[in-house]
Amino acid sequence: MAQQDVQNGEGEKVAPAVEIKAVLTQLVVPKADDAVKFYKAAFGAVELERSTHPKRKAEQERPFILSAQLKLGSSTFLVSDNTEDSGEPVNVVGSGAIALWLETPDIGAAVAKAVLAGAVSEGEITTGVFSDPEQPVGKVRDPFGFLWFFTSPVAKKAAAESEAPITV
Amino acid sequence: MAQQDVQNGEGEKVAPAVEIKAVLTQLVVPKADDAVKFYKAAFGAVELERSTHPKRKAEQERPFILSAQLKLGSSTFLVSDNTEDSGEPVNVVGSGAIALWLETPDIGAAVAKAVLAGAVSEGEITTGVFSDPEQPVGKVRDPFGFLWFFTSPVAKKAAAESEAPITV
Repeated sequence: MAQQDVQNGEGEKVAPAVEIKAVLTQLVVPKADDAVKFYKAAFGAVELERSTHPKRKAEQERPFILSAQLKLGSSTFLVSDNTEDSGEPVNVVGSGAIALWLETPDIGAAVAKAVLAGAVSEGEITTGVFSDPEQPVGKVRDPFGFLWFFTSPVAKKAAAESEAPITV
Repeated sequence: MAQQDVQNGEGEKVAPAVEIKAVLTQLVVPKADDAVKFYKAAFGAVELERSTHPKRKAEQERPFILSAQLKLGSSTFLVSDNTEDSGEPVNVVGSGAIALWLETPDIGAAVAKAVLAGAVSEGEITTGVFSDPEQPVGKVRDPFGFLWFFTSPVAKKAAAESEAPITV
């Protein structure tokens, strides 16, 4: 059995065949309920389902969200509370750095809407790090520390010519 | 124009209509080329395209990866280098905490394969934080600090009954 072959830790064994069907990104925040509201207001996210902790005590101020699944266009992502039912922080998140990219036909309007909902604009719409030098990118930081880039990959040159930089 | 309505920062304005077509997660790492190799070996990711910095100097040891787009099952994500062409770290990533979830029919084999490729197993396959108490979850930490959870949402009860916990 392939699984047992690698339990002894010998690196020369052949990796077993594994099928990965999909990957989902989970954002882990101190107040998931607030974050869900923000992503709805800022990006128009739609909540598909929410799983709360079944043992959450009634006297606690809000439900513990195991995961809320949000749909944004053709994509989905998860938002979760970062504390245990006891109030202790969970120690199950990674230390890696990320950014999140949103594809939208109107970068300027998307930045403006996000800022209206409580995000902080991080500079003008510009080309820059991580992107094709000719591809305009807008970026905001949300109240939970995540950085979101807005881009229009389909009509990037047209967008660059027609939209003046905004400084909301 | 909706965009201009919010440039004055008055919070009472109505948010403009904005269409978000998709969201992509970008993992920002010190050595993106190594990370791409790891995700191919550990999860069977397929590289769809790679964008490198056009001005990368020839004497530098490896290309600066603006973004490599990896496909995992029905999903895609991005991997990028975290340094500028000059070698300075980029300051464009968020401070939020994340985890990444992989759907697979065989959690045990998926964990074993990832460990063989260089990930570190974080305990046995178990139910736990973020998940339905009846849903088995395996988890590994990759060499770049990201935490990956493996789960089988479709046949979760069958998986729990047929798979013994492994401790690779």
